[in-house]
Amino acid sequence: MNEVLKAIKSRRSVRAYRQEQIKQEELEAIIEAGIYAPSANNQQPWHFTVIQNSDILRYINEKSKEQMAKSEIDGIRNMGANPILDITYQAPTLVIVSGKRDSITWRADCAAAIQNMLLAAESLNIGSVWLGLVNFLFKWEGEAAKLGIPEGYEPYYGVAFGYKAKESQQNAPKRDYDVVNYIK
Amino acid sequence: MNEVLKAIKSRRSVRAYRQEQIKQEELEAIIEAGIYAPSANNQQPWHFTVIQNSDILRYINEKSKEQMAKSEIDGIRNMGANPILDITYQAPTLVIVSGKRDSITWRADCAAAIQNMLLAAESLNIGSVWLGLVNFLFKWEGEAAKLGIPEGYEPYYGVAFGYKAKESQQNAPKRDYDVVNYIK
Repeated sequence: MNEVLKAIKSRRSVRAYRQEQIKQEELEAIIEAGIYAPSANNQQPWHFTVIQNSDILRYINEKSKEQMAKSEIDGIRNMGANPILDITYQAPTLVIVSGKRDSITWRADCAAAIQNMLLAAESLNIGSVWLGLVNFLFKWEGEAAKLGIPEGYEPYYGVAFGYKAKESQQNAPKRDYDVVNYIK
Repeated sequence: MNEVLKAIKSRRSVRAYRQEQIKQEELEAIIEAGIYAPSANNQQPWHFTVIQNSDILRYINEKSKEQMAKSEIDGIRNMGANPILDITYQAPTLVIVSGKRDSITWRADCAAAIQNMLLAAESLNIGSVWLGLVNFLFKWEGEAAKLGIPEGYEPYYGVAFGYKAKESQQNAPKRDYDVVNYIK
């Protein structure tokens, strides 16, 4: 199996990180992997907000949870009210990926960029996890602008990055292979 | 640069293919890469329809273009009316990725699966291109069921795969690096 297939198969979501910050050149390689995703008509409709300031990470966590605690969905509301939960898992780096609203397929393009970043991180032995809950932050008016997300861009997902707390990594969860229909 | 970063940076969309079919084990490695994408709550909300029958590929092309020719968007309508255009670029394999409608984030999860498949193909020196226009096929009622796409799943995108017609490959289009905001 080649290195690419190996990274795809062995990567799993990491939710426990060392506090040591990842190196700037590692971060740049990860971001570059994101911007090398394909996009419809080569519109490259993405923007990356890299947050490594611990006060701002704490603020994002608290403000997101405050909105989660108001959710109509029980599971979300309970997580929002959980004082121990850190929605970015104390990772030292959070990247928020935003998409350009007036481009054709910005959500799919941004998702491809995120997947590239996850694999790039894995190839550098850096842990990562795709984050949905960070989006609750943007239920507060003005938070996107405060983080410098440009006008016309919509925050889509967050991704946490950091060195893995555990050296040895469990296998990725078992996959269902019965999801293919062949027409030959 | 490691092999994963190299594949991410060197991969580009291929629109000219050799007619020779890709090997079954290559196809399976590509599909497996797809199902190893991460998904919200590990829902694995994807389904893959692999089409390698040339009559059905021709049918998909013609029926999709018939719908495109009725589009209100000039560019799409012109493509639909173009007798030379093949929306799957005469690739010997087309995979349609469908998402489970009642899962949380099936579109993002399926896009991650597609990106994994594109990179897996590149790592095997197989060309690929992400296809949006195939979706026009499903404007005809009943076409999804005819292809065996299960009830409750929505066709999302197509991906074409095949050996590259040209051995040497141009570089991927230039990327804009001015899309990052650092908060340290």
